[in-house]
Amino acid sequence: MQTIQTITELNKWVREVKNSGQTIGLVPTMGFLHEGHLSLVEKAKQENDKVVMSIFVNPAQFGPNEDFDRYPRDLERDERLAAAAGTDIIFAPSVEEMYPRDSQISISAGAQAEVLCGAKRPGHFDGVLKVVTKLFHLTQADRAYFGQKDAQQLAIIESLVADYNFPLSIRRGETVREADGLAKSSRNVYLSEKERAEAPHLNKALRLGKQLLLEGKDPLPEMAAYLDENVSGKIDYIELHDYPTLTKNIMDEAILALAVQFEKARLIDNIIINLKGN
Amino acid sequence: MQTIQTITELNKWVREVKNSGQTIGLVPTMGFLHEGHLSLVEKAKQENDKVVMSIFVNPAQFGPNEDFDRYPRDLERDERLAAAAGTDIIFAPSVEEMYPRDSQISISAGAQAEVLCGAKRPGHFDGVLKVVTKLFHLTQADRAYFGQKDAQQLAIIESLVADYNFPLSIRRGETVREADGLAKSSRNVYLSEKERAEAPHLNKALRLGKQLLLEGKDPLPEMAAYLDENVSGKIDYIELHDYPTLTKNIMDEAILALAVQFEKARLIDNIIINLKGN
Repeated sequence: MQTIQTITELNKWVREVKNSGQTIGLVPTMGFLHEGHLSLVEKAKQENDKVVMSIFVNPAQFGPNEDFDRYPRDLERDERLAAAAGTDIIFAPSVEEMYPRDSQISISAGAQAEVLCGAKRPGHFDGVLKVVTKLFHLTQADRAYFGQKDAQQLAIIESLVADYNFPLSIRRGETVREADGLAKSSRNVYLSEKERAEAPHLNKALRLGKQLLLEGKDPLPEMAAYLDENVSGKIDYIELHDYPTLTKNIMDEAILALAVQFEKARLIDNIIINLKGN
Repeated sequence: MQTIQTITELNKWVREVKNSGQTIGLVPTMGFLHEGHLSLVEKAKQENDKVVMSIFVNPAQFGPNEDFDRYPRDLERDERLAAAAGTDIIFAPSVEEMYPRDSQISISAGAQAEVLCGAKRPGHFDGVLKVVTKLFHLTQADRAYFGQKDAQQLAIIESLVADYNFPLSIRRGETVREADGLAKSSRNVYLSEKERAEAPHLNKALRLGKQLLLEGKDPLPEMAAYLDENVSGKIDYIELHDYPTLTKNIMDEAILALAVQFEKARLIDNIIINLKGN
């Protein structure tokens, strides 16, 4: 496995792969890898000849009071894990390489970014769209892999690709969890011991909510009460929407999603509920 | 030459061309072809294995009171001209094919769209960015060709490609003119006989302005006086900017540009002035 840091080198590699008629799978990450990322690599390996993982802590998707500076980074560890999972290339550019000048042209998420994390993190999804558009073009990937844990991000990127006919497919990866149900996240390292012990209650609250929803009840009040009782963190939101449109007009699939702010970590989790088969 | 109307058929053609290792040049047009368009096809043929011309009167770039409905269209004539110039494929989709649903995600031009035509036609360049982004992705072109007559459009599209690392090069084509200096334009058919006789004064005003600028004078007042005297149309703007940044901070190249509103036609023209070599 090779780590590439410049666009020039990446272009060269992409040209060679494309000229030989091979396909490319892209796994975009911000590094500090966990099993969620590695499960996406595995899926990408099954479906493509080559797998590129990008590792880039993207300043454009962090707000001014968010954790850009202290976001965990460990490229050497990431390289070991990515190589073991079968990644062919890591693309780990500097901020200057990705953003050599201010952009003239902007890309904005629409109504899908007005709920859930988008309502709490203004500009976050615009920053995501900026970096993924660049990465899609730079890697000329045939398929790009995103985890369902960031379900709103996934839905918005699916809209980007559909609205602008990007020549690639977005592939969804299921959320990978610890044995106790906590969704794997690079930010879990921020949790205190006490918070880590409480954190599985996020997933439990979602499973409780799913049950209530399938019984035809409004799940949100009981979920809020459950979390208030079981976690010391502050509920940022608990919401129910159609998926992937993220409107209130729930059709075949719904998303129940929540965010909890702990001392140093803001954790999110969600559950997609198929309402058609039930 | 083949005319393709659906994305599915275009995808198939693009895949075949790309799989055979050939390059694609794209000439995006709104049809009603003139020698300006055909000179772009010629340039594209020299630099690529295959040439796609898109013909699509893009509603997204017309304002509510503009000429979308009466914009001149003649696909049969266009097919004859495009074929004679050596076009391989015309892509002429319907509006429904290009815009099957409202977009969730929007692309916006920045400060470069706040002057010249952008100031007079709000949203125009956002509509241009929308359609060219789709066309770049759909055709997977290696090079795309735009005429210098739409100099602001060209500058904004160059920013799009640079800001988002599109894997294609933008190639500039020089403005093609009638013998009397009038820039070729699909909208010239709107001119009355009297207006057609006056129209070459637009280019004359620009050449006068260039001379004044190179003499170190402010060209704008004399250009306005010249046009007032020689054309019945109303001056929409006469402006001087840096090119291609379109800021007031003029460096190596300047653009003198103007728009004149005649009875049924709004004509634009410009001249790029190299200040470094002088």
